[in-house]
Amino acid sequence: MRIALAVEYDGSAYRGWQKQPGGGTVQDAFQEALQQFAGTAVRVICAGRTDAGVHALGQVVHFDTPLERPMFSWVRGINTFLPPAVAVRWAQPVADDFHARASAYARHYRYLLLNRAHRTGLWPGRVGWYHHPLDLGALQAGAALLLGEHDFSAFRAAQCQAHSPVKLMHKAEVTRVGELLVFDFEASAFLHHMVRNLVGSLVHVGQGKHPPGWIGELLAAGDRRLAAPTFAAAGLYLAAVKYPPHWGLPFGEEAQLLPVGPGR
Amino acid sequence: MRIALAVEYDGSAYRGWQKQPGGGTVQDAFQEALQQFAGTAVRVICAGRTDAGVHALGQVVHFDTPLERPMFSWVRGINTFLPPAVAVRWAQPVADDFHARASAYARHYRYLLLNRAHRTGLWPGRVGWYHHPLDLGALQAGAALLLGEHDFSAFRAAQCQAHSPVKLMHKAEVTRVGELLVFDFEASAFLHHMVRNLVGSLVHVGQGKHPPGWIGELLAAGDRRLAAPTFAAAGLYLAAVKYPPHWGLPFGEEAQLLPVGPGR
Repeated sequence: MRIALAVEYDGSAYRGWQKQPGGGTVQDAFQEALQQFAGTAVRVICAGRTDAGVHALGQVVHFDTPLERPMFSWVRGINTFLPPAVAVRWAQPVADDFHARASAYARHYRYLLLNRAHRTGLWPGRVGWYHHPLDLGALQAGAALLLGEHDFSAFRAAQCQAHSPVKLMHKAEVTRVGELLVFDFEASAFLHHMVRNLVGSLVHVGQGKHPPGWIGELLAAGDRRLAAPTFAAAGLYLAAVKYPPHWGLPFGEEAQLLPVGPGR
Repeated sequence: MRIALAVEYDGSAYRGWQKQPGGGTVQDAFQEALQQFAGTAVRVICAGRTDAGVHALGQVVHFDTPLERPMFSWVRGINTFLPPAVAVRWAQPVADDFHARASAYARHYRYLLLNRAHRTGLWPGRVGWYHHPLDLGALQAGAALLLGEHDFSAFRAAQCQAHSPVKLMHKAEVTRVGELLVFDFEASAFLHHMVRNLVGSLVHVGQGKHPPGWIGELLAAGDRRLAAPTFAAAGLYLAAVKYPPHWGLPFGEEAQLLPVGPGR
């Protein structure tokens, strides 16, 4: 039986999702807990390989198992063995040709940027920070230029292994919630460091170093060296992974509000 | 010169605000940073002694210093020496008779309760958790009975050192934000463990173990043994401390929304 399962985590203390020599990844923690519950080693495939320090509201994974258990047992059982900063949200049986990465048609990433003069004490590792005032209208105008199909080479890390730099951006929005700027990007897929690179260049636009049209110029030139530096991992969340309805998975799971934060 | 200063912190890793033998308190961290900035030991007085594991959006402290520095230097300078989970938000000169605790007319505490079947992975140490469904209407009806002046002995910890159990409750609200229940209490002052005890008993009401009127009965009886157990520290935040306007401090600083959280 193939099972799809959603995981949320605070990635602050982890070396990213993907298993690597030396351990300390979310996948290590997850597979260990899964093995303790299932009684045997199980290999899992994820929808999006989040980097070190990046968080997830709804990472989706799949794995195969001969074990027959009610779905709520998978959720509660694995959660019993997981460390506090990782938890399963739901589990669901899927057809054998479901693939957590290949079957997804979109990913939603959210970036939280604290925009005030002084750093956070409440959200260390959980928000990015920029101390100069940023113009929301300019950020929004710059972000709007990202919509549609583009070659995103200007925002691609050198070590990116994607087959193509061409992605379809469905959503690119910036909103202000008090002292926080919230960047929401939904695309068919993302290149390595793409969201953090987009935020870096948009911040230059928000500060007035470049007009919003600069984002369009960067896309057209396709040269990473012309764009701004990569922003911190701390503020980045894999908010949701979306699948066509016929897979029967919880659809378009949206990131919500945690009603507490840096006030005023 | 007397300075008032607001501090925010993630209290997860601290033994509460108040300095105690063995260290590890927020006050230890704060006074060390202050000493490094000021070059000399400085004693600080706080508005509310938060317990181990309790957080603050706007703890207010005051201290006396002969040092003349612009206020933004106090903010940035102390933040440089503070650990990541503690930060100064603002600093302001005040009259010599200002007292962080005695001059305040109200405190606002907020409790975040994750109300869903499975635990959090995203907010370990930052939200309380109750896995059975809770009825919002019942919670609100129970909370409304707390408004006004009451003897809160039923919700007072045995080790509480307050002069009187009589406090004036200005606000007692419960709202639902997705999977979170948000409890907001504003009162003249709070007894030891009072918010966590109130949440514990309200949860019994929300689950239907008692009708909302039980909260009124508990107040009338004034017997801690009749009320429900103390709830976890994890979800509790000192959201704001309020002072009469003539002190010239930032007024009624409200807790805001962190726009990320357990979705769906």
